[in-house]
Amino acid sequence: MMVPQRKTSGQSASRHRDGRHSYAEHQPMQKRRGQEMRHSIKRPHDNKLRFIALGGLGEIGRNMMLLEYQDDIIIIDMGLQFPGEETPGIDYIIPNISYLKDKTKNIRGVLITHGHYDHIGAIPQLIGKLGNPTIYATPLTAAIIKKRQIDFPHASKLNIEHINETTVTKLGVFSVRYFPVMHNIPEGIGMEIETPIGIIVHPGEFKFYYDRNNNPVGLEAFKELGKKKPLLLMLDSTKSEEPGRSMPEWQVEENIEELLRNAKGRVIVSTFASLLDRLTQIIHIADKLERRVAITGRSMEANFAIAKELGLVKIKKETIIPIKEIGKYKDEKILIITTGAQGEENAGLTRMAAGTHRDVHVRKNDTVIFSSSIVPGNEMAVQVLRDNLSRQGATVYHYKILGIHSGGHATRTELKEAINIIKPKFFLPIHGFYYMRQVNAKLAEEEGGIPAHNIVVGENGQVIEITPESIQLTKEFVPTSHVMVDGLGVGDVGEVVLRDRQALSADGIFVIIAVVDSQTGKVRGSPDIISRGFIYLRESRELLYHARQLTKKIIEDATQNMHPVNWTWVKDNVRDRLGKFLFQKTERRPMVLPVVIEV
Amino acid sequence: MMVPQRKTSGQSASRHRDGRHSYAEHQPMQKRRGQEMRHSIKRPHDNKLRFIALGGLGEIGRNMMLLEYQDDIIIIDMGLQFPGEETPGIDYIIPNISYLKDKTKNIRGVLITHGHYDHIGAIPQLIGKLGNPTIYATPLTAAIIKKRQIDFPHASKLNIEHINETTVTKLGVFSVRYFPVMHNIPEGIGMEIETPIGIIVHPGEFKFYYDRNNNPVGLEAFKELGKKKPLLLMLDSTKSEEPGRSMPEWQVEENIEELLRNAKGRVIVSTFASLLDRLTQIIHIADKLERRVAITGRSMEANFAIAKELGLVKIKKETIIPIKEIGKYKDEKILIITTGAQGEENAGLTRMAAGTHRDVHVRKNDTVIFSSSIVPGNEMAVQVLRDNLSRQGATVYHYKILGIHSGGHATRTELKEAINIIKPKFFLPIHGFYYMRQVNAKLAEEEGGIPAHNIVVGENGQVIEITPESIQLTKEFVPTSHVMVDGLGVGDVGEVVLRDRQALSADGIFVIIAVVDSQTGKVRGSPDIISRGFIYLRESRELLYHARQLTKKIIEDATQNMHPVNWTWVKDNVRDRLGKFLFQKTERRPMVLPVVIEV
Repeated sequence: MMVPQRKTSGQSASRHRDGRHSYAEHQPMQKRRGQEMRHSIKRPHDNKLRFIALGGLGEIGRNMMLLEYQDDIIIIDMGLQFPGEETPGIDYIIPNISYLKDKTKNIRGVLITHGHYDHIGAIPQLIGKLGNPTIYATPLTAAIIKKRQIDFPHASKLNIEHINETTVTKLGVFSVRYFPVMHNIPEGIGMEIETPIGIIVHPGEFKFYYDRNNNPVGLEAFKELGKKKPLLLMLDSTKSEEPGRSMPEWQVEENIEELLRNAKGRVIVSTFASLLDRLTQIIHIADKLERRVAITGRSMEANFAIAKELGLVKIKKETIIPIKEIGKYKDEKILIITTGAQGEENAGLTRMAAGTHRDVHVRKNDTVIFSSSIVPGNEMAVQVLRDNLSRQGATVYHYKILGIHSGGHATRTELKEAINIIKPKFFLPIHGFYYMRQVNAKLAEEEGGIPAHNIVVGENGQVIEITPESIQLTKEFVPTSHVMVDGLGVGDVGEVVLRDRQALSADGIFVIIAVVDSQTGKVRGSPDIISRGFIYLRESRELLYHARQLTKKIIEDATQNMHPVNWTWVKDNVRDRLGKFLFQKTERRPMVLPVVIEV
Repeated sequence: MMVPQRKTSGQSASRHRDGRHSYAEHQPMQKRRGQEMRHSIKRPHDNKLRFIALGGLGEIGRNMMLLEYQDDIIIIDMGLQFPGEETPGIDYIIPNISYLKDKTKNIRGVLITHGHYDHIGAIPQLIGKLGNPTIYATPLTAAIIKKRQIDFPHASKLNIEHINETTVTKLGVFSVRYFPVMHNIPEGIGMEIETPIGIIVHPGEFKFYYDRNNNPVGLEAFKELGKKKPLLLMLDSTKSEEPGRSMPEWQVEENIEELLRNAKGRVIVSTFASLLDRLTQIIHIADKLERRVAITGRSMEANFAIAKELGLVKIKKETIIPIKEIGKYKDEKILIITTGAQGEENAGLTRMAAGTHRDVHVRKNDTVIFSSSIVPGNEMAVQVLRDNLSRQGATVYHYKILGIHSGGHATRTELKEAINIIKPKFFLPIHGFYYMRQVNAKLAEEEGGIPAHNIVVGENGQVIEITPESIQLTKEFVPTSHVMVDGLGVGDVGEVVLRDRQALSADGIFVIIAVVDSQTGKVRGSPDIISRGFIYLRESRELLYHARQLTKKIIEDATQNMHPVNWTWVKDNVRDRLGKFLFQKTERRPMVLPVVIEV
C-alpha cells in the first residue's frame, strides 16, 4: 500500500451557512427565521449528526453515503451498480441525488475509499450536478477516476486532491484522517472522521493481511483507533455470512506459482481488470519464473499501464511482450493475461476459446486459470466458456477447485476481530443486502459485545440520527429510487419501460393493424400482423387467419352498431379478446397492440 | 429405501426384428438384405453397443440416454430442463427424439432412476410419440410420474411396471437388475445392465450414507458389482468439482433438530417440494419435538400425500394440522413447511414475507429455515426474500451459514471411492457440463487408475461405440437440438423467436406506421409510432417528431423519384436510417419495424 506524502487542506473557507435543509423548507419562511433567531447558534436538527445512504444498503454496489451536520455535508464514495435480470438492457444504475439538489453549497467534499466502479462509477454523471466538489482520493484511485472520465467528454472537469496516511482533510466541521487497508485493489483506505459528536470509523472495504503463520498483521491502525474510543464504527457486510478467515494472499500466491511452475505449455490467466492486486501478483510470479507476459484486453492493458506508472509493478524489463510476439517464445515460457473470466461475450478469453481471437487460439496443453469469483448471474456464461476451453484440450482451473483466488472482503472472524479491536460505542453495518447487514449486526451484538440498542440496520435513504448518547433510525426518508443509465439516457428509463422489456422477453409482441374505410365502416382487405418473440409466424398461418378474422369482426360490429364509434373502446376490445384468443390457442400472453387507421 | 417385492417380466415377446436402423436405411434395400443373409445373425454395427445421450451432457437436466444393440433399444430417464436466461419465456426444454422416430418398435422399455423432473419431466410429451413403451420405476417414482401425467389430459395412458431390488427386467438382449442408492428423494435406484458385450453399471444419482463416525455404509451393492468385473461405469459428474465428502445426513438432522429445539417462536421451513427426503426428515424431527406441522403449497402437499401413502412418513396422528389451525397452538409448538426457497414469485414463503399469504404472516420471533441450495439464476430473488423476511423481524438461517442442507450428488471423494470399488474397465462420465465431466474423467484416470484410452467424454447426440475391447467416440451425431415447451406449444419456439425475445428485452421495439396516398405518393398526416421497452414516449416528443419526419421524407423521396416504388427497398431504408437515427440520439438499438399502408 503506497501512499505518497502530500498534505491537503480542506475547503472550509468557501462554506455558506444559510440554515436551509429539507425539513425546514416545509415550514413558512418567517417561522423558520424566527426559530433561528431564538436558538441563536443552534441549527436545525440541533446537534445531531445525520447519516444517509443514497445507495449501497439493501443492494450490492451504487455505494454513496452522506454525513450531514448542520450545514456541512461530506460524501463518501459515488459508485454505480451493475444491472441484473430485473433491469434488462440497462447499462448501469447510479444513486439518486434529489436530496442534494438544493444543498450543493453545503457539500464540503467527496471521499473515495478505493478505485472500484461500485465506489467511483457514478462520478461522471453526478459530480457536475453536485457543483463539482473536490474529490479526495489516493493517487491510484485518482488515476482510475480520471481515466474513466475520459469516456465522458461532456462531463465536468474534476477537482481531485491526493490523500495519504498523513493527510488531514478539514471539511467544514469534519476532519478526516486516512489509514491504508488491504482490499483487492491497491491503495484502499479507511477513514477516521472527527465530527462534533465524536469519532466515526469507516474502514472502507478491507480484509486482513496474514503472515506465513496465518496471523493477521498490520492491525496497528485499528488498534490506534480503538484507543481513541470511537463513537461509531461503520462496517462492510458483504461477507458477513462467510465463516472463518479469508484465504491468505501468500497461499494464493504459492498456489498460482506452483501451477505456473508445473504447466507444460502456455498459461492463460483470466481475472477482472479491476483486481489490480491479483494482476500485479501474477505478473510478479511470471517474472520470477521467467515466463514472458503478454497482456491483452483494453481494460486490462489500461489498468496495467496505471499500475506501472505508479510504480506498483517491479519486474525485469523484458518480461512484458506484445501479444503478437508470443509465437517467438517456447510455450512453457509464455503467460497471457486477459479479460473474460465472467464469460463476457466479446472479452479476450471468450474469443480465444471460440477461435476468433486475432492473436491467441486455445489449444491442447494450454493451462487456463480463472482467478476471480463469478458474479451472480454469470454462472451459465462461465460454464459455457469452461466447456469450450476444455473441448479445445486446455486444462482449466478455477478458484473453487484450487485456492487461486481470495476475495477482498472481511469474513466473519475478521469482522469480529475488527469490532473487538476498534470497540466502538455504536455499530452501523453498511454495504450489502439487508439480511447481510442484519447478520453483521448480530455478530457485533453476540461476539462484539455491543448492546442491541446501540446497533441500527437502516435502509437506503433512511435518515439515521446520531448524538453522543444515541443512534436512531428516523422515519425520514430521502429519495433513492434507481437512476438508470441506458446508452445516452440517464434516468429516462423507468419502471414502465423495464416492465415492458420484461413482458416482451417472456412472450413477445403482437401488433395488428386494421385499415377502416370511414365511409363504409368496413376493414379494408385483411389486417396486417407484426409479431416478434411470440410464435414462428410462417408455421402459424391458421392462428393468424383467425386473429385477423376476429379483429375484423370486432371492428365491423362496432362500426355497424355504434354511432359515433368509440375507437378507444374498440381497441381495448380487440386487445382483450385477441389476447384471450391467443392465450387459449397457445397459453402465451404476448403484448397485444391494436392499431386502427381510418381512411 | 423401501422397495416392495414384486417381480416384473420384460417385453421380449413383443419384439420385432426387421433390421431397420438409421445407418442401414441409407443403403439400397437389396444390398441390405444380402448383407443380412451373408452375416446370418449379425446385425448392422456388428456387435457394438451404441450409447447415445439425447440430453444431459453439456447441460444440467434433460437427462435421456439410450443403449442400442442391434435392434434393441433401452431408454434411461426422460427428463426436462428448466429454462435459463438464454431461453426467456420458455416453460421448459425436453429432449429431441428425432433419432427414435423410425425406431419406436425397437424400444424395449424406459428405465427411470428416480422421481425428479430432470429425469421424468418429458414423459408426458414424449412417451406417446415413442409408441408408449413400458416405464420401469419404483413405486414412489411411479406415483410421481402418474401424478404429473394428470396435468396433461391429452397425453397417453402410461404403462408402468414397478421394480425393486429383486426385479430382473429382461428387455431384448438386455437384462437389468436394480440396487437402491441414496439421493435426496427416496427410492433412487442404480442399475446393473447385462448386455451382450458385458455388464454396464449406472448408479443413477447418488451420494454416500454415513454412520455417526462418518464412515460410509451400505456400499455392499457397489462391492458386489465390483466382483462381477463390469465393463463400463457411467458416473454422475454434477459434483465432480466439489472436494471431499457430502455433509452426512445425520449431521444435517442434528443441526435442524437443534435449531427447532432452540427456536422461541414458530419455525417456517422452506425447501424444494421434490426434496422428499428433507421434507420427511423435518416432519419426523418436528414430531419428535412435539411441534405441530402445517404443510402449505400445492406441490408440497401433493408430495407429502404421496410419501404418506407409500408409508414413508411415520409420525403421531395429531402432528399434522391444517394450516388454518396454527393459531390454536402456542408459537413454539408450530412448524410450517412451505415452498418458495428459490424466491419464486407466487410461492408460499414469498407471500408470507410480503404479507399476502392467507394464513401466515411472518413476524418477530419467527425462525425461517431455507433448507435447499439456490438454483443458479435465482440468487437475487432469494436475496430479496431473505431481506424481506429479516425486515419483518424473522431470524433467517440458510445452508451456507449453518449445515441444514446437504446435496444429493457424490462429491470428489465419493466418486473416487465408487470408481475404486466398482473397478470398471471403461469409464463414461455422464450428467453435467463438459468441463464437469472432464474433471470426473481426470479423477477416474488419476485416482481410479483407469487408463485414459478407456475413458471417453462425449457430447449430446454423439454415438459412442463400445465393444468388450474398446470404447470410442464416433463421428456420428444424432439430432439433439432443444425442443422447447412454451404454453401449449412443443417445439414451435425456435432460435428466431428466442433471439427476438432477447433483442426485445434489451432495447424494446419501435413500430412506425405510415399511410401513403397511392395517388399523390404523399404520407397522410403523421406516421403512427408504437414503441415499448425503448424510451418513455411522453418524455420523448422531440425524438418522436424527428423520427416521423425522417420516415415521411424517406417514403416521399421514394414515391417522387422511383417508378414503380420498390416498397421492400423503402421499408429496409426506413429501418436502417431510423435505426441509425435512434441509436445516434439514444445509443440504444430497438427493433425497428416500418409498416407502409397504401390507400
